[in-house]
Amino acid sequence: MKKEYSFQFGRFPTRVIIQHELPPLEQIRENLTALGYRFSGYLLVCDEHTEVFARRIAGDAVCVLKSGEEEKTWPSIERILKLAKDRGLGRDGLFIGVGGGVVSDLSAFAASIYMRGARLCVVSTTLLGMADAAVGGKTGFDLFGIKNFAGTFFPARLVYMPLESLNTLPEYEWKSGMAEIIKTAVLDREEKPESPAYTGSFFSACLKLREGSPPGVFPNRLYALNPEGLFECITRSVEFKGRIVEADPEETGGKRALLNLGHTFAHALEASLGLGSVSHGEAVAWGLARSCELGFSIGITSEKQIGEIKEVLALYGYEIRTPHPLLKDIPSFMQALGGDKKKSSGQLSFIVPCETGAVIAKLGAGLPPDYLHIVEKIIENL
Amino acid sequence: MKKEYSFQFGRFPTRVIIQHELPPLEQIRENLTALGYRFSGYLLVCDEHTEVFARRIAGDAVCVLKSGEEEKTWPSIERILKLAKDRGLGRDGLFIGVGGGVVSDLSAFAASIYMRGARLCVVSTTLLGMADAAVGGKTGFDLFGIKNFAGTFFPARLVYMPLESLNTLPEYEWKSGMAEIIKTAVLDREEKPESPAYTGSFFSACLKLREGSPPGVFPNRLYALNPEGLFECITRSVEFKGRIVEADPEETGGKRALLNLGHTFAHALEASLGLGSVSHGEAVAWGLARSCELGFSIGITSEKQIGEIKEVLALYGYEIRTPHPLLKDIPSFMQALGGDKKKSSGQLSFIVPCETGAVIAKLGAGLPPDYLHIVEKIIENL
Repeated sequence: MKKEYSFQFGRFPTRVIIQHELPPLEQIRENLTALGYRFSGYLLVCDEHTEVFARRIAGDAVCVLKSGEEEKTWPSIERILKLAKDRGLGRDGLFIGVGGGVVSDLSAFAASIYMRGARLCVVSTTLLGMADAAVGGKTGFDLFGIKNFAGTFFPARLVYMPLESLNTLPEYEWKSGMAEIIKTAVLDREEKPESPAYTGSFFSACLKLREGSPPGVFPNRLYALNPEGLFECITRSVEFKGRIVEADPEETGGKRALLNLGHTFAHALEASLGLGSVSHGEAVAWGLARSCELGFSIGITSEKQIGEIKEVLALYGYEIRTPHPLLKDIPSFMQALGGDKKKSSGQLSFIVPCETGAVIAKLGAGLPPDYLHIVEKIIENL
Repeated sequence: MKKEYSFQFGRFPTRVIIQHELPPLEQIRENLTALGYRFSGYLLVCDEHTEVFARRIAGDAVCVLKSGEEEKTWPSIERILKLAKDRGLGRDGLFIGVGGGVVSDLSAFAASIYMRGARLCVVSTTLLGMADAAVGGKTGFDLFGIKNFAGTFFPARLVYMPLESLNTLPEYEWKSGMAEIIKTAVLDREEKPESPAYTGSFFSACLKLREGSPPGVFPNRLYALNPEGLFECITRSVEFKGRIVEADPEETGGKRALLNLGHTFAHALEASLGLGSVSHGEAVAWGLARSCELGFSIGITSEKQIGEIKEVLALYGYEIRTPHPLLKDIPSFMQALGGDKKKSSGQLSFIVPCETGAVIAKLGAGLPPDYLHIVEKIIENL
C-alpha cells in the first residue's frame, strides 16, 4: 500500500506520500531532489513520544519537545529556531517535523519564519495529523490562551504518512483522528465505483472500517485490524482536503472554511472545558452533532442526514450528548463561542451539513438574527 | 506631486501611494475599498517619534512602541498582537504601521501571523522606509542578536509615503535612507528621457539632488531644499524595487538578491560594531564601496564605475574609508560575515556592481576559492 499526491497550495507545491514505513533520511533527500530542492542541513523536531521515530530517520540533530498542547507556545518555537541556528542551517535548511498536530504545527511555524522561510518536511505519526493537520499549510501556536491564535500559511514541500507509526498510538489519539475522518466523510459526497481500493461512498467506508467491532466501543488499533480500510479512509481524507485547500489555500474564498464543519462548536467546547479536557477529535465529533442540530433548526440539514451522522458517531463510541457531561457552565461556553478566531467582521459562522456536503451559515445567509438563542437552546438540549 | 503604483508581490497585490500629506483614515478606507477589501477594525502601530502622525490618522487605537532597533524583538510583537486581540480584531482587521523600518517590519510581522494573516497598511514616515523597507513584503524582528533573523514575506495591501513626514526627520535618518537610494541608483541603469519628471539616469538624479550643497556634507532637509528632486528619487526607488520584487517575491529566483548590493558587508559591519553604532544606511554606503573593491578584485567592476560610485558617496559625506574608523577588530568582522543570514548552502554571496547594474558573485560563479582572503585584504586596505 502506497499512494502519492501532488498538490499546489498557493505559494508552494506539496507532495504527500502515504506508505507503510517511516521514510529514512535518504528517501526524504531523494524525494526532495526529485522536486527540485536541495538542502544544506536539517533539524528533526519531535516530542517525547515520537523521538523514537525521529531517531530512526536520522540519529543526530533531533530537537525533542515535551509532549502536549501546553507546549504549543512561543518558547517552543524559539527553542526550535535556536537549535536550527546552532546547527548552522541557512534559508535552504530543512526542518523535519516528526509527530502529530502539535509537533507539525510548531515545526512548520518555526520553518515559516526561519530567515523568512526555510524548507519543511512533515512526517505525520498520528491519525489526526494524517487526516487533517499535516496537509494544507496551516501552522501555528497558542497565544493568550487561544488555540492557534498566531500562525502562518506555509505548506510543507513533503509530507509523509508512515502508517506503521499508528501501531503504537494510544486509543485517545485514534479516537481524536477518526472524528476528523468522519467529518471529512460528511463533506465528501463523491461516490467512487466500488473496487478493491474503494468502498463506494466515503461515509460507507467509515462504517465498513469498524465492521465486526461492538457498537459504542471505539475499535482500537484500526491499522492492525483493517489496514486496507484505514488506508482508504486516510487517502480519501488527504485527497478531499487537498483539493479543497488547492482551491482556497489561505481560507479567503470561503471553500476552505467548509473543513471547519463542527469546529465552531468544538473550539468553544475545548475553550470552555479548558484545553486538553477532551481531545480535539472528540470535541469535533460532539460539535458535528451540534452542527447537525443547528442545520436542522435553520432548515438546512435533513432529519435523515442527522440520523446517519449521529449513528456513525455513536457506533464509534463518541460522546455526542448535550449538554456535554463535562460542561458545567453554559454561559462560559457561549462566551467562548464569541471568541472563536474564525469569526470575521465580528460575526460568527457555522458550517452545517446539507445534501451536497455542507454549507456556511452566517447572519443574513442561513442564520436568523436570534441565532445565538437557538444555539444556546441546542447546547442546553431544550 | 502624487504618484501611485500597483504591484503584484506573490500572494497579494500592493498599492503604493506617494503623496505630500499623511493619509487620513477615510482615505485609507476608500483606497482599501477600491481594492476590494473591507476591514472590521483597526490598530495603529507607531513609536514615540511617529505617535504624532498616528494620532493624526486616527485618535484612538494606537499602540506606541519604544523607538529603536533594540525594540525589534518578540515582546514587541506580542504586545501588538495582544492589543489587536483586545480591540477584537478579526482576520479582516487592519494593522496600520506608522513609522520607519522598525515599526513597519514589526507591525507587518504581527499582521502576518495574527490569526494566520490579517490586513496590513504601512504608512512609511522615513526616507529609509520609503526607499526600501516599506515596499516588498519583508517583515521581521531580531532574534539571538541577529538582525531580522525571524520574519515572513507578507506584502502590505496599501503603502503610503507621505513626504511631509520627512520634514521632521533627523539628519541621521536622512543619511540612512539616502544610501539605499544611491544603492538603487547603482542597480537601475535605465535612462529615462529628460523631462520635468525625470533627470535622465537615476544616478545623475542622485547627483543633481544635492546640487548647491557643499561636497562631503550631507545636504539635510532634502524635501524642503529640492522637493521635485527628492520625489523623483523616491518614485524611481519604489518603481525599481517593485519590479524586482514582482519578479522574485520571496527571493528564491536570485533577482531579488540584487537589492542586497552592499548588504553582505553592511550586515557584517553592523553586527561587529554592535547594532546601532552606525545607521543601516551608513553601513550600506560603506558596504557599497567594499562591493566595488571586491568587484574590481574579481574582474567584474570597472575602475570607472568604482570612481563614479565612490564619488557620489563621498559628495554625500558618507564614511567609506576602510578599515572603518569604528572597526577595531577585523577578526570579529570576518566572523560576522560568516553568520550573515543571506548565506545559502553555507556559502556566502556578494552582490557587485557591473555595467548592467550588479551581479551575484558566489563560489564557482565569480568568487575564487580564496575569496575570504581577498575580502580580508579589502577590509584591511592592504
